[in-house]
Amino acid sequence: MSSAAARPATPAGLQSSAIAALARGIFDDVAAFSPDVRGVSRPAYSATESKTLDHLENFARAHHLNTWRDAGANLVLAGPDDLSPEAPAGYFGSHVDSVPEGGNFDGLAGVVAALLTLISLQREGWSPRVPLRALALRGEESAWYGHAYIGSQALFGKLGPKALAARRGGSGCPLAEAMRDVGVAVEEVAAGRPLMDPRSVRFFLELHIEQGPVLIDRDWPLAAVTGIRGNIRHREITCIGEAGHSGAVPRWLRHDAVFATAELIMRMDEHWATILQQGGDLVLTCGVLQTDAAHHAMSRIPGETRFSFEARSQHAATLRAIEGLLHSECEIIERERKVRFDFDDLVRAPSAELDARMIQAIRSACEAEGLPAETIPSGAGHDAAVFSQAGIPTGMIFVRNQNGSHNPLESMDLADLAAAIGVMARVARELTQ
Amino acid sequence: MSSAAARPATPAGLQSSAIAALARGIFDDVAAFSPDVRGVSRPAYSATESKTLDHLENFARAHHLNTWRDAGANLVLAGPDDLSPEAPAGYFGSHVDSVPEGGNFDGLAGVVAALLTLISLQREGWSPRVPLRALALRGEESAWYGHAYIGSQALFGKLGPKALAARRGGSGCPLAEAMRDVGVAVEEVAAGRPLMDPRSVRFFLELHIEQGPVLIDRDWPLAAVTGIRGNIRHREITCIGEAGHSGAVPRWLRHDAVFATAELIMRMDEHWATILQQGGDLVLTCGVLQTDAAHHAMSRIPGETRFSFEARSQHAATLRAIEGLLHSECEIIERERKVRFDFDDLVRAPSAELDARMIQAIRSACEAEGLPAETIPSGAGHDAAVFSQAGIPTGMIFVRNQNGSHNPLESMDLADLAAAIGVMARVARELTQ
Repeated sequence: MSSAAARPATPAGLQSSAIAALARGIFDDVAAFSPDVRGVSRPAYSATESKTLDHLENFARAHHLNTWRDAGANLVLAGPDDLSPEAPAGYFGSHVDSVPEGGNFDGLAGVVAALLTLISLQREGWSPRVPLRALALRGEESAWYGHAYIGSQALFGKLGPKALAARRGGSGCPLAEAMRDVGVAVEEVAAGRPLMDPRSVRFFLELHIEQGPVLIDRDWPLAAVTGIRGNIRHREITCIGEAGHSGAVPRWLRHDAVFATAELIMRMDEHWATILQQGGDLVLTCGVLQTDAAHHAMSRIPGETRFSFEARSQHAATLRAIEGLLHSECEIIERERKVRFDFDDLVRAPSAELDARMIQAIRSACEAEGLPAETIPSGAGHDAAVFSQAGIPTGMIFVRNQNGSHNPLESMDLADLAAAIGVMARVARELTQ
Repeated sequence: MSSAAARPATPAGLQSSAIAALARGIFDDVAAFSPDVRGVSRPAYSATESKTLDHLENFARAHHLNTWRDAGANLVLAGPDDLSPEAPAGYFGSHVDSVPEGGNFDGLAGVVAALLTLISLQREGWSPRVPLRALALRGEESAWYGHAYIGSQALFGKLGPKALAARRGGSGCPLAEAMRDVGVAVEEVAAGRPLMDPRSVRFFLELHIEQGPVLIDRDWPLAAVTGIRGNIRHREITCIGEAGHSGAVPRWLRHDAVFATAELIMRMDEHWATILQQGGDLVLTCGVLQTDAAHHAMSRIPGETRFSFEARSQHAATLRAIEGLLHSECEIIERERKVRFDFDDLVRAPSAELDARMIQAIRSACEAEGLPAETIPSGAGHDAAVFSQAGIPTGMIFVRNQNGSHNPLESMDLADLAAAIGVMARVARELTQ
């Protein structure tokens, strides 16, 4: 199908300019009641989060949608004829909470896109075989309780007692109490019972702003996400050498922790380059690296470094390979440079595969809309990963965005969001026919 | 000359065991009146330092030596017939001050060795053509006034006004005042006039404990020092990249300050190895390396590192080469990794050449004493460098020592010191005949 032939496919739906105007109105209204010192603040399971859902619900009703809250106190928006919450359905959605001093688009953009897609399709007089719903989730950001994806994990019985007992900001109100206050069925959540039957969810599609710079750099308005990177992390690896007089100890008698650590980073860098050259997916980061401030000095051979290590990949096998390489390189360097590497416990977050049929549906819709039909991995985690891990066919769309996320400088062009909503409407038609 | 033939060369001098016993007595006495919380403390230009000189002077007089103080308030010990302080002479010596919580041997060992060499030679009934004197210097350690080699620099008119105005510990008594209090001719020093005519100093030989582990590792009791390494130093180089989401920014869009810094260190490490392979002398140290604690995080691409850089070499050309290589490698990395390196002012300390004839005299004396006739560079600075820079033929002997210096764990075997005194007596005979 050529894009020219496809263009008039949504004649009765909302025009792009109308979609952008509606979106701007919602974003401005929500930002107005969720201000922070800088940017916005919509804490997980807070009154501000509830007010955001109320606002979206009122907007949806004004546009003749049917609405309800699920057992996780999330907002569900449905077509006027979709009256059975238990009936199988497909979902578009994302979360409405934000980080403190956050941007207005991380999360909310996906909810607005889902809502406006539904309204636009209703305008067309669209009558799907499987109902499409918009899902406005709570509690995705880890900034509040130290746990991410709370809302979606609660839906599928995956929120553990540790998360439920976590206190806001470390010492505030426990999560379980905050959830109860906004109407979550906390006993079910605590018992690990799903609030939503994954078999009744035919698909889940989440639109999200890209948190990296790739779409900006490539000049792509949006892209289908191929998968959500898992990661392996050491919060702190210690390299223990031996301090000494910088002038008096020759190279062959040194146990220099900085040179050893630099060599480890460069050896891992070479493996990274090789994996990318072979078509693999990987990013490596040592975000924290410190000599010992209590003992380091310009003229002292550094006896210790502490550093973090994180690898992210869509492919579990790549993460396993990096884990093995990290240890084997450390062993070589330990022998050659007379140091020791001590590792804290490795923390693993699994990768999430996104549904091939949904990726293809997004790319086809992009082509039909005359847009680049490109793909990109997601380096950050998302609610979509929880849906995917529950066995639900899941897709994601990234919209280009400047300046990263989790800050007030998030910058998404509403024309790009409108274009993405056009793509989502096409995807909805294909998946529900 | 074979070492067997040489053995009976000091028949009338002190035996090694007697030398070791005398040395032990002096070390114990001085330590007893200069205790610190741990180890010893003999501040530069303090009453404790003066008391140390008094003690050494009394000891020398009891052994029939002639003694006086020079215009720098240092102690000079001379033979009983050496009655003209202005007459040309050769000097053996070192300093008596220590760092806080220091070891008893850094400095004092060289003064004790000079004193006992002189006593041993007197016992032989030795009558040199050029008098040999022992010099007990003040104020070598930078720990007190932030300036090193104060005593020897003052002798040669090289102590600047900045050093004279420096306050002890940053806010205490000014150095000029402390010097005046112990009897230094401060007006002469402030005017930059030498207190000692370098042309009247025929040679200077300093024994010092090795501050590194080479002699221990090689199992050499002592070695002739070939030269004193100069250095070039950046207290702080800043690598400026760009922070970003560790999962969302691919390798080709990163500006990772840690990977860039690690690459710089490894590139300089390769140059280091090459220079050593070509017979050069060099040590490289990045003693301090820090990501920005206010902004770094495990899941954030590090946008900045700050690190120190120090190169030491006996050869000025090597230091110039390293300086050039540092900048050219930074330029390559800036292009490849999209970062910027900002340099603070480079601080240079010149290297000091030691006198070839004195090095040979020391090695020959070692051979004659049946000791390994080995050489080693000095990575740390010493008063000897100031004498060398004043144009005086200068030599140094390192004695093996465990656990470095500037700490109470300094550990020199008195048998090694006695062996070194045997070598010094031979060197004195050769240089004064």
